[in-house]
Amino acid sequence: MSKQVARHDLLERVTEYIGDDLLKVEQIFSDELATDHEFVADIQYHVSRFRGKRLRPILMLLTAKALGEVKHDHMVLAAVVEMIHTATLVHDDVLDDAATRRHVATVNSRWNNETSVLYGDYLFTHAFHLASSLDSTLGCRLIGQATNVVCVGELSQINERGNSELSEEHYLRIIDQKTAELCALSCRLGALFGDADEDIVNSMDCYGRSLGIAFQIADDILDVIGEEEDMGKTLGSDLQKQKLTLPLIRLLEQLGEAEAAQVREILAQPNEETGAALKPYFARCEAIEYAHHRAIEFAQEARQQIEKLPDSEATQILADVAEFAVNRNF
Amino acid sequence: MSKQVARHDLLERVTEYIGDDLLKVEQIFSDELATDHEFVADIQYHVSRFRGKRLRPILMLLTAKALGEVKHDHMVLAAVVEMIHTATLVHDDVLDDAATRRHVATVNSRWNNETSVLYGDYLFTHAFHLASSLDSTLGCRLIGQATNVVCVGELSQINERGNSELSEEHYLRIIDQKTAELCALSCRLGALFGDADEDIVNSMDCYGRSLGIAFQIADDILDVIGEEEDMGKTLGSDLQKQKLTLPLIRLLEQLGEAEAAQVREILAQPNEETGAALKPYFARCEAIEYAHHRAIEFAQEARQQIEKLPDSEATQILADVAEFAVNRNF
Repeated sequence: MSKQVARHDLLERVTEYIGDDLLKVEQIFSDELATDHEFVADIQYHVSRFRGKRLRPILMLLTAKALGEVKHDHMVLAAVVEMIHTATLVHDDVLDDAATRRHVATVNSRWNNETSVLYGDYLFTHAFHLASSLDSTLGCRLIGQATNVVCVGELSQINERGNSELSEEHYLRIIDQKTAELCALSCRLGALFGDADEDIVNSMDCYGRSLGIAFQIADDILDVIGEEEDMGKTLGSDLQKQKLTLPLIRLLEQLGEAEAAQVREILAQPNEETGAALKPYFARCEAIEYAHHRAIEFAQEARQQIEKLPDSEATQILADVAEFAVNRNF
Repeated sequence: MSKQVARHDLLERVTEYIGDDLLKVEQIFSDELATDHEFVADIQYHVSRFRGKRLRPILMLLTAKALGEVKHDHMVLAAVVEMIHTATLVHDDVLDDAATRRHVATVNSRWNNETSVLYGDYLFTHAFHLASSLDSTLGCRLIGQATNVVCVGELSQINERGNSELSEEHYLRIIDQKTAELCALSCRLGALFGDADEDIVNSMDCYGRSLGIAFQIADDILDVIGEEEDMGKTLGSDLQKQKLTLPLIRLLEQLGEAEAAQVREILAQPNEETGAALKPYFARCEAIEYAHHRAIEFAQEARQQIEKLPDSEATQILADVAEFAVNRNF
């Protein structure tokens, strides 16, 4: 219960500190997507209801504040990165066949696959269009580079589906690409467009990357053990899609050969009972705890990167975001 | 038969005239997509086998030649536009569930929906990344704008699916957005990066737009009456997906109320026999001929736009491309 309050406190501090800037980012975001086409506006409104924590804009703006002030370019870039993130969420829903995200039916289940694919494209191209409104091509280039990496991560994940031999190292590489890259980019752009020195830019990139990895590991743990009602989205989808995540990788490493073979068999034929079928195996070893421990390590790495920043409310919140990343609903 | 030879002649003239530049565009295209990831390279190689006529790069390079010379920026932009076009084709295959494109199994049928969606995204983001390698944001901005329009066209098409009351005007607006926009953009960029005057830039935009519309109407006619073996792709998919195209719009206008109602019933329950079931209705009125006539009108409009250009082999070929657009396989 106290953890929930901590989350609420954190949100309140963020809102108090950079709420006005976040609203401006929202305005830029919706101005870019404004449309006369009623059916596009319809999808838009619907998607706006399941947009999430705004983690990436928050990271960009906090970084800017920690190193100086929030400029117009920061707000444009924050809207761009959030738009790209939203595009990947919309396309992920096609991939996952997810029926619910943030308590709202996904585009995919409300309309159809076609609409999801095209609306995701619409978000991608508007994001790059918005990025090109800046004076230099630097933003476009860095955003293009990072999004290239995200796509490789997503393709790798599909390619490794059903591979029950996936190593922790390979898993970490994939989540680095598909999730952490945009977090790293947000912090990098925050620092770069705040005219920070190269080593600070690199530290902020590392902060964002470690934080992103910590967040994703925590998400992957919740997908295995969380309750759908708390999370507001379809859980267990990693199991259904035969995506091996850290808790499972560790579980397979820890079990004896015979039991590991049983687990592999369960994983190979996913159904509604898969989560329940795995429970006794998880109870027998500390795979969840191990994954949580790794997430905490990455969150610590993130915090170390910002130790050299001047002490400020921004820096404090960045440290607390890293704490929050690994202490959500468990 | 003579029409087939004319096509071959046209290709030969294009190759002789701008073949070297087209090869450089290909090189830029594949350099941008080069990857160490074997499974990405696999998809890449596969997609490269069904890439098509390279119409958009050809339009851009011919425009550049007609107004001066082909510069490095032209070749980069040609690769960008072709990459975006390829991305839309890959995503179209998800939408169409098309099994074959250019005699090769589509990404979608060879791999799966997920891979198609993600590989399309990979192409989109690499395209924008490549565009950002230019000195100014102008290319990024125009490409972003045009791609925004393409997405709206595609979304409109989905939204109008099953609407058997679609008007010719609305149909033309949709194909203007989803197809003609990138042709117009190619010619616009060709002129703009060749330092042409504003009125020439606009004329070239109009040439590309009219040509694109002519091409799409011709394609839509072929989808209704063509033979799959000639076309090398799955036909009749417009009928299966309940997309109303110009031949059908005209057919419904020309038939009496009773027969139009019969056709609407046939269209509302698409199956393998739909094409055959429509044949007697098409035989009774001149809907195909009308659509062909409209395509020819747009091709003529295209040709008129380039009358003011200095006479050259480039201008000649641009005129012949407009002729070819409406005289393919019928």
